[in-house]
Amino acid sequence: VVKREVIQVITPGTIMEGNMLKENENNYLASLYLFEDDFIVSYVDLSTGESFVSKVNGNIKDVIGELYNRPVKEVVLPTDFPEDLKETLTHYLDVTLSSEHDNQIPKEFQKLVTGLEDTRLVHGFGYLFQYIFRSQKRFLAHLQAVQFIELNDYMKLDLYSKRNLELIESLRDQSKKGTLLSVLDKTITAMGSRMLKKWIDRPLLSKGQIAERHQQVHTMMEHFMERDELRESLKNVYDLERLAGRISYGNVNARDLLQLKRSLGALPQIKQLLNLFDHPSVSSLLSEVESYQEIFEILDSALAENPPVLITEGNLIKDGYHKQLDEYREVNRNGKSWIAELEAKEREETGIKSLKVGFNKVFGYYIEVTRANLAHLAEGRYERKQTLANAERFVTPELKEKERMILEAQEKSTTLEYELFLELRDQIKSYIPALQTLAEQISKIDCLLSFAMVSEENNYTKPVLNDEQQLRIREGRHPVVEQVMKEMFVPNDIQMDESTDILLITGPNMAGKSTYMRQVALMIIMNQVGCFVPATEAEMPVFDQIFTRIGAADDLVSGQSTFMVEMMEAEHAVRHATERSFILLDEIGRGTSTYDGMALAQSIVEYIHQQVGAKTLFSTHYHELTSLDKSLSRLRNVHVEVDEEDGEVVFLHHIKEGKADKSYGIHVAKLADLPEDIIQRAYQLLESFEATSVLREEKPQKQLTLFEEDQGTLPVTANVEVID
Amino acid sequence: VVKREVIQVITPGTIMEGNMLKENENNYLASLYLFEDDFIVSYVDLSTGESFVSKVNGNIKDVIGELYNRPVKEVVLPTDFPEDLKETLTHYLDVTLSSEHDNQIPKEFQKLVTGLEDTRLVHGFGYLFQYIFRSQKRFLAHLQAVQFIELNDYMKLDLYSKRNLELIESLRDQSKKGTLLSVLDKTITAMGSRMLKKWIDRPLLSKGQIAERHQQVHTMMEHFMERDELRESLKNVYDLERLAGRISYGNVNARDLLQLKRSLGALPQIKQLLNLFDHPSVSSLLSEVESYQEIFEILDSALAENPPVLITEGNLIKDGYHKQLDEYREVNRNGKSWIAELEAKEREETGIKSLKVGFNKVFGYYIEVTRANLAHLAEGRYERKQTLANAERFVTPELKEKERMILEAQEKSTTLEYELFLELRDQIKSYIPALQTLAEQISKIDCLLSFAMVSEENNYTKPVLNDEQQLRIREGRHPVVEQVMKEMFVPNDIQMDESTDILLITGPNMAGKSTYMRQVALMIIMNQVGCFVPATEAEMPVFDQIFTRIGAADDLVSGQSTFMVEMMEAEHAVRHATERSFILLDEIGRGTSTYDGMALAQSIVEYIHQQVGAKTLFSTHYHELTSLDKSLSRLRNVHVEVDEEDGEVVFLHHIKEGKADKSYGIHVAKLADLPEDIIQRAYQLLESFEATSVLREEKPQKQLTLFEEDQGTLPVTANVEVID
Repeated sequence: VVKREVIQVITPGTIMEGNMLKENENNYLASLYLFEDDFIVSYVDLSTGESFVSKVNGNIKDVIGELYNRPVKEVVLPTDFPEDLKETLTHYLDVTLSSEHDNQIPKEFQKLVTGLEDTRLVHGFGYLFQYIFRSQKRFLAHLQAVQFIELNDYMKLDLYSKRNLELIESLRDQSKKGTLLSVLDKTITAMGSRMLKKWIDRPLLSKGQIAERHQQVHTMMEHFMERDELRESLKNVYDLERLAGRISYGNVNARDLLQLKRSLGALPQIKQLLNLFDHPSVSSLLSEVESYQEIFEILDSALAENPPVLITEGNLIKDGYHKQLDEYREVNRNGKSWIAELEAKEREETGIKSLKVGFNKVFGYYIEVTRANLAHLAEGRYERKQTLANAERFVTPELKEKERMILEAQEKSTTLEYELFLELRDQIKSYIPALQTLAEQISKIDCLLSFAMVSEENNYTKPVLNDEQQLRIREGRHPVVEQVMKEMFVPNDIQMDESTDILLITGPNMAGKSTYMRQVALMIIMNQVGCFVPATEAEMPVFDQIFTRIGAADDLVSGQSTFMVEMMEAEHAVRHATERSFILLDEIGRGTSTYDGMALAQSIVEYIHQQVGAKTLFSTHYHELTSLDKSLSRLRNVHVEVDEEDGEVVFLHHIKEGKADKSYGIHVAKLADLPEDIIQRAYQLLESFEATSVLREEKPQKQLTLFEEDQGTLPVTANVEVID
Repeated sequence: VVKREVIQVITPGTIMEGNMLKENENNYLASLYLFEDDFIVSYVDLSTGESFVSKVNGNIKDVIGELYNRPVKEVVLPTDFPEDLKETLTHYLDVTLSSEHDNQIPKEFQKLVTGLEDTRLVHGFGYLFQYIFRSQKRFLAHLQAVQFIELNDYMKLDLYSKRNLELIESLRDQSKKGTLLSVLDKTITAMGSRMLKKWIDRPLLSKGQIAERHQQVHTMMEHFMERDELRESLKNVYDLERLAGRISYGNVNARDLLQLKRSLGALPQIKQLLNLFDHPSVSSLLSEVESYQEIFEILDSALAENPPVLITEGNLIKDGYHKQLDEYREVNRNGKSWIAELEAKEREETGIKSLKVGFNKVFGYYIEVTRANLAHLAEGRYERKQTLANAERFVTPELKEKERMILEAQEKSTTLEYELFLELRDQIKSYIPALQTLAEQISKIDCLLSFAMVSEENNYTKPVLNDEQQLRIREGRHPVVEQVMKEMFVPNDIQMDESTDILLITGPNMAGKSTYMRQVALMIIMNQVGCFVPATEAEMPVFDQIFTRIGAADDLVSGQSTFMVEMMEAEHAVRHATERSFILLDEIGRGTSTYDGMALAQSIVEYIHQQVGAKTLFSTHYHELTSLDKSLSRLRNVHVEVDEEDGEVVFLHHIKEGKADKSYGIHVAKLADLPEDIIQRAYQLLESFEATSVLREEKPQKQLTLFEEDQGTLPVTANVEVID
């Protein structure tokens, strides 16, 4: 009985190859560890070896926001992880939950975590490590030293915003189509494509880093010839990151190493091209090219030119690489040429013209003589081996000896080649960290080239960064929608300086309010990933977070009413936004009745204005909120322009200063030919509503109570406009 | 050169058979004729011969509403029909437009139109007739005498309402799934299914006719054994209507007539079963059964039991039907038996045991003798016909003679059978009107049985009809939604008596307002097609029209804004509704900004209340409209109940008296954990909004102007509620 041992357990998070692994996507295995108020989130992508750990201070929703958009398939939880949090996780995310009781890291792996200063991070990563260690049962040489990712170094994007803005997945079918990623991704390599996703997922916060990427993109745009050649060169670079993973797992074959060799062979040309861009920010993108030359030479000297897929059949190693192997091959070659000459020799000696020398798998080499010629053979010299219908097959002692030599040499050389290949593979293993660094450098070059391509093709502009929270965009466009609409797309400006925090946007449905709001958010993200933006001019600050409440999220969270979702998104925004954040709120309050919806809309606007100070785009049907510009000094009204042509309403998609036409709806009703009585009465009612609204004032005692209780800084009156 | 003449032109409206013709659907060809302010609309279904003509007094939209939902594939227009109206037609309907310059009706067809008193109707139908006459080029015997359909005899349902209520086609994919038809259609025959569609499309206006159908359904429900047997019997009835069409066109074969015979054969049993229901309203459903016996007997005496598809190969006619045919058949049979006996006779005479008599297509009958036996044949008697390898074939004068007789008899009998069949077909032609009447009777029985089945299966209740425009439904359900939700569906009452014209429905989204409104409309339609309704008790008046403005029609009319569509639907309703109409308006005004939307909503409600007086369900988010119950005496507030359980909002789908909770939205915001400052401020604002709204009063001079100009009867003040 052969003892079968489980040699590897494959779970959704630990797939290394095959159809389930998409080459343009990372496949993260994550773990969560709850320590007092902090969640320690650890990640490993086993296919690339990338490992990192973050700390989330907040509730489970923040953790979900952090996990979302990373292709996390499986989350490892400590055995004692709270049940209710598990339920919340599976409610919002499509992941497998696994559990692990141990978080010890064996001595030989301590080097992975030496960079982590906070022991809670080590404890948290320990669960993930133990889970992999037990399920994978192999030496995991390609695991990279665990990096601590300070989430505060990146712009925060919550779960709702990531979905609403369709950065990486579309709302409609969770595909790439129609996303920001689809527009920006012109990468050549799978590694580059994966990195681009990470970039979009985590826009930068450091002005210096953003400016550096802009500079790199700018330089690449200027040198279009070099850029095209560089893109061409990248086609020779294979997926080094995943190759490194497979080297570590011990399942590379000679063809994989050949790909590695070719990739490394392309580096000198890439380096040379980078230098031609003539700017240090670009030429520095690929460093220490020389050290890769060493690996290239090892592979080049050892690997045969056209090896088979199997590593047990020889033909893996070049001639001249190993003396003993060369000798075996020489014996083999000599024996075969001796046999090739044997036929002529034997024909001459025996005088039999039809004599043949042949080989078959069962009997080996033989000399074949037809029955009629048997008498011509010398006595004693030919040993009968096989009898056919009209012929006999023989061997001679010399032929037997040569045969033995040939087969022995073949077997020995195949065995030796296999051993040499394993040695080579082990030798390459020690270069895994170097290859991972290289993979990262190549990915970055690929991403920046992609930005340069896209920025040029779509006439993007390089944003000017500022520290004053000033947002000024001239003729901005929606990067995804303009791809579909082409010249039909109507560009729009936006201007929010120190004295403007909130733009209150009014105007009818379908006029383009949502597109406008989204395009501003997308431009902010594009800027902070280092790309240029779709506009003719752009001055932008660095935002720390973006919050959105835009329609169409209704069906995403099942079982909750539209309005509840709306309020949850608003809550998230006002709780977490800072003065450096950007908030989009689209028709807050429309899911409930007019007055409480309007009351909530106004109180949220006021709260943002007085307590948060984030730059905010707020669209609304509550026309009456437009009078807030009198009481809220940093609120400005804008509206979508509507025109009438031949009795039809035309949406111009232009955003203009000031509030929308109050009686647009009644105007449409008139076009629809409603009875004049109704139209006149509606105008009359509208006027009276407006008149009353102007005179409205809160009851003073109510206000006093509020102030006493909350020490808030709410405005004394919201509406003080007086019209005669 | 053979002269080829166009013998028939097939257009979308003139298909007679094949895949394009759906058996459960009528295939109407229509024509429009504009005479001053009246549109004459004519219809023919060529597959059934049904012809009718209506007069529409109104604009093209009313005509479209009339054409819509009838499966009209093609509309014939006079050559001078206005271009702009053509464009409107193709914009709203998916039809082929054809043109015709002539509207003469030849003398021999005048009988089709003798029933039409108004000559404009005859002129209008003429275009349709000429078009068919020219394109079909055949005698169209099955065209039924043109019926004038007084549209005022039927409930009016406009285009929007037919679509919105999903009577026959779903909004989502224009399929039957999820429609009222899908629930009500348990018909057995294709004719019945087609009639049911017509019934749903044109609910009745006559209280007497409605009551009669109710009585019939009621009787059928009481006798379930008889009902099941009757349904079983209907399975023997083929599509008589289309059969009549094919008889007229001259393309029925013997199998079609066999189906007709079987259908007629089922009638005595059907009649007998109808009598068992023991109620005159049911037993009278099938009249003059005896007269169909005549056709049955003709067919029964003439038609063979198992005729082939082709009508040129004989075997169509029974023995004993025609003397000459019987004789031919006798000759044929005798000849064949003579030949069968010939072999034995010849063997005996010649003494050749191996002698054979055979037949082949080229040489006919022969006597075969092997070469060895040739000598045994008598001299002179056998004439050589064919030489084979080992045998010779001969004929004798007797054999030749018999052969001639057999073949001649066969040919003559086939020809005669063909002639007899054509005679039979012509004879049946004269019964086409009787068959069409029969088809209608069977269809009606089928529809009523379907109602009885559905009413029993779904626990529907028989409505009590009244003349006082009182609508009282206890535990009403939505017939389609309850099929999906089963016991989960929450039934609701509705009560609208003389003193109530308008129910103003408030409450949050997703709480079931739309379902409630739709279910009332569907029950009204079900009642007026004669079916029972999904409720435990129902008292209902007869409504002359139903108007709806319900969401989700946005994408149907391309290129127009949602709000424009909303206003057009509202316009249609207020312009055409009477005191006996029913109007559904769902959140009118939500597509524009608050104040003009609210102004329009209020002025529309007031207009309906003061000028129209139709029973109206009006749902709204404008909570402030609830105070209209103070100024509009026949308006009542109801709301959808919402509850809170464990911090989650629960929709109970119960409709209750009174207005909805004003602060529902703020309550949800609190559940969503928005900062307390925002919640408090929102409550404060809400209170102040409500307070101002209460004190609001229109400026008197404005109102005077309006009254002077319009002589309208608008209310003096809309809001006079005073709270302390």
